Amino acid sequence: MSEQTADAPLDIVFLVYEGLTPLDLAGPFDVFGRLPGAKIRMVGPTQGLQRTTSGTLALQADSSIDEVTSADILIIPGGPGSDALALNSQVTDWVCAMDKTTRFTVSVCTGAQILAVAGLLEGRKATTHWRAMEMIAQYGATPVTARVVEDGKIITSAGVSAGIDMALTLAARIGGEEVARAIQLLLEYAPEPPFDSGRIEDASPALLDLARNGLPKP
Amino acid sequence: MSEQTADAPLDIVFLVYEGLTPLDLAGPFDVFGRLPGAKIRMVGPTQGLQRTTSGTLALQADSSIDEVTSADILIIPGGPGSDALALNSQVTDWVCAMDKTTRFTVSVCTGAQILAVAGLLEGRKATTHWRAMEMIAQYGATPVTARVVEDGKIITSAGVSAGIDMALTLAARIGGEEVARAIQLLLEYAPEPPFDSGRIEDASPALLDLARNGLPKP
Repeated sequence: MSEQTADAPLDIVFLVYEGLTPLDLAGPFDVFGRLPGAKIRMVGPTQGLQRTTSGTLALQADSSIDEVTSADILIIPGGPGSDALALNSQVTDWVCAMDKTTRFTVSVCTGAQILAVAGLLEGRKATTHWRAMEMIAQYGATPVTARVVEDGKIITSAGVSAGIDMALTLAARIGGEEVARAIQLLLEYAPEPPFDSGRIEDASPALLDLARNGLPKP
Repeated sequence: MSEQTADAPLDIVFLVYEGLTPLDLAGPFDVFGRLPGAKIRMVGPTQGLQRTTSGTLALQADSSIDEVTSADILIIPGGPGSDALALNSQVTDWVCAMDKTTRFTVSVCTGAQILAVAGLLEGRKATTHWRAMEMIAQYGATPVTARVVEDGKIITSAGVSAGIDMALTLAARIGGEEVARAIQLLLEYAPEPPFDSGRIEDASPALLDLARNGLPKP
């Protein structure tokens, strides 16, 4: 793939909706927002404020899906609201139509549920948050446990924080590795998690129960 | 410190302002938002939409600083806008007054610049984004290169993504380690950066020049 040049703006659209998980969106936003030539738009089922997870943070959708018909990259974050959004055929039809125009169609976390219902994961390898792995399989995806899964132009990433890894990977493909490394340096992305509990494979039954049933879902 | 109980809500205030870096806010938001008993408020210099970094994402400040006089935890994210915000004495006076009421006063990234001008870092160990280390030293802080620095109730974290590490550390102190680990599992925070360029100490002069002068600052 050729690298992005300043005279060919890269048109990036984020789907922003009620009940998304902000980190799903902010990770890729802060990576792609530093990519030379990138032009980012926030698009919602309706124009206006979209309340996230717990209702205490609202993000603005500057346009509604009716107004936006193409993108170079379409990014769909996840969150507790993705379960309901996947049942909204106006949204999934739009995602399907947008996908015909994109270079990359991307999900973070349970955003993959929207791609699944839109029919875009059928016969493809894909990943999502562990809570949605069975759901995407029901729509014909082959679930893969990985931070980032690429199958053609469909790129899916695991839960929430995996969006940062996905975005840096894709930024390197688009803008070149040096640009991606410079963005990583700007974001000081040299993570030091204080615990080692980020993987479902390593979780004890008690921890998994607490995560599933004791706390707000992502 | 005793653990948080459901009958004692934990009042968390984020300062949200023009030119913040969304990931600075979203990392801690998605951690603290899952802490049992947490009540989060978004507070801005003025009430209403606050445009972030590149202007293409707007977050809503539900209240203005005039309306908010106390918090258990005050969190100040960074971003390109923090340089200007640190010169706004109405904001730094408010931060100073709020600090008198908090259990923890916290910054992410260049949010430390606001704490510095408010006089809260004088004589304390602190960290910030590498681009602001000299600035906080000028205000009497002893800069420390670390992801998270705790000095009494003042907790500072390094650039952008370090807010996630800070929030999980503090969540464990408040809610107990098992809750913090469950939140980590929900966020699938098992990072796999595709490159190893997140630390200023390891950056080549060419990469540092690209980060400093070739891309939008965080």
